[in-house]
Amino acid sequence: MTFVQRLGAAAGLVEQRLSELLAECGPEEGGRLNAAMRHALLGGGKRFRPFLVIESAGLFGIEAHAALDAATAFECVHCYSLVHDDLPSMDNDDVRRGQPTVHKAFDEWTAILAGDALLTLAFEILARPQTNADPGVRAEMTRLLARAAGGSGMVLGQMLDLEAEKRGEPQRMTGEHVRRLQSLKTGALIAAACEAGAVLAHAPDKQRAALKGYGDKLGLAFQIADDLLDAEGDAERMGKATGKDSAAGKATLVGIIGIAEARAQLAAAVENAERELREFGDDAATLVEAAHFAASRGH
Amino acid sequence: MTFVQRLGAAAGLVEQRLSELLAECGPEEGGRLNAAMRHALLGGGKRFRPFLVIESAGLFGIEAHAALDAATAFECVHCYSLVHDDLPSMDNDDVRRGQPTVHKAFDEWTAILAGDALLTLAFEILARPQTNADPGVRAEMTRLLARAAGGSGMVLGQMLDLEAEKRGEPQRMTGEHVRRLQSLKTGALIAAACEAGAVLAHAPDKQRAALKGYGDKLGLAFQIADDLLDAEGDAERMGKATGKDSAAGKATLVGIIGIAEARAQLAAAVENAERELREFGDDAATLVEAAHFAASRGH
Repeated sequence: MTFVQRLGAAAGLVEQRLSELLAECGPEEGGRLNAAMRHALLGGGKRFRPFLVIESAGLFGIEAHAALDAATAFECVHCYSLVHDDLPSMDNDDVRRGQPTVHKAFDEWTAILAGDALLTLAFEILARPQTNADPGVRAEMTRLLARAAGGSGMVLGQMLDLEAEKRGEPQRMTGEHVRRLQSLKTGALIAAACEAGAVLAHAPDKQRAALKGYGDKLGLAFQIADDLLDAEGDAERMGKATGKDSAAGKATLVGIIGIAEARAQLAAAVENAERELREFGDDAATLVEAAHFAASRGH
Repeated sequence: MTFVQRLGAAAGLVEQRLSELLAECGPEEGGRLNAAMRHALLGGGKRFRPFLVIESAGLFGIEAHAALDAATAFECVHCYSLVHDDLPSMDNDDVRRGQPTVHKAFDEWTAILAGDALLTLAFEILARPQTNADPGVRAEMTRLLARAAGGSGMVLGQMLDLEAEKRGEPQRMTGEHVRRLQSLKTGALIAAACEAGAVLAHAPDKQRAALKGYGDKLGLAFQIADDLLDAEGDAERMGKATGKDSAAGKATLVGIIGIAEARAQLAAAVENAERELREFGDDAATLVEAAHFAASRGH
């Protein structure tokens, strides 16, 4: 199987399981809420975070189906964050992946509640005995995901991003500041997804730290590639060097350090990500490919 | 100590601990987010849900300090739900407990993110080894709280309440429908707080079921008393039988079954709550008082 086939196969498993979990979790009267959650969860996407959970667990011989429920919890958190980020008072996006965003397809209060329900569902999934027979693993997965997603992780990243944007300050941010913001907003969840495999496998601290280190660098590569795509895609199409994010007042690394330096930092991030995986040898081939994939998205 | 003194003492412990947890959890750069979370968490309130966790654990000889962190998680969820319910697209309330609501004191996106962070913090707290040495207890507390708070519990209740209100349908709802809605929106979290003591104590199923049953009836009494307070307070002041909630288009039990029948159902709920506690004998005296307290709030 090629990397893209593996990614696609994992996405298929994840979507099937998400669909089952949604069908289980909603009482009949929750039709509108359940439909909004379904719209948010099953509207496409690469399912990159659950893929990382499955592949990092696979490093230790854990089969995909045994990591699947834990993997879906990460996708629930990712999708909730998109629903809330798209809201009128935040990024005010009407379209995502070619579909109306949840607050456009339904309305604002439904979108807020669907996001709340998805975030809560993630923790319910992680805590269920079906997800893992060992309660120590369930509790530690909960702690890991909550820490990555909350007020000292992803939510803080979105907060800092919006604060800078609403104050019209992205232009005055340093590259270091943007990297910190992006590492919270995007990197924390990606790194936790990589670390999750080690938690599921009761791996030694050293291997868990290596996977977290890999995830940190992967998240960085992911974000620089996003910024480059935004800037270059736009430059090619429209003949100017600023894209959608910088036009929207978002802080982008490319806007601050330029395309050439961003490319250099992207290559370094991929190399550093690979280095963290060395101790796993050839077993980590797919995760190595994942770093290259993250760096080349859309290219 | 009188009941009110016990409630006040527990509130003091809970507020002190919430303040410590907030100070721990926020990196320095998270100033605005942390301030909004603090505004939401420390703006007053009776701390009734954490009190129920502490008192139900106390039935089994667990001291307050050993149940305290778990109790604070319930308060985090309660406060997040208030922040989101107050938002302009939901109940659009500007004032809560005499203070501006979070979206008025800060702004809408900060309120949404502060709510998200509080919800996530609740699960981080429950999953931490400091909260309970037994990972089985931590995982089960997480499952219990997530189930009560999410898309088949509290969030669904708020959804159904808003759906009825936005369609202008509360007048057409039956008493049974309103009770179901309120049992989801308010009752589920209260019942889970009562059940939590049994989880913390590894209590046998029968005692856990009794505490859940008590919590269900307590939640019902709590909500009928709220509806009565709304209707009677208003009737006394303004000479009409409809209050703030029914004026806002909210479904209230009193609006459907009338004050006399509501009072009869309230008395029955308190009696049923007491009955569930019989097997605990005199040890449950404080929880019995809690049911009477819930039924007489504001009177």
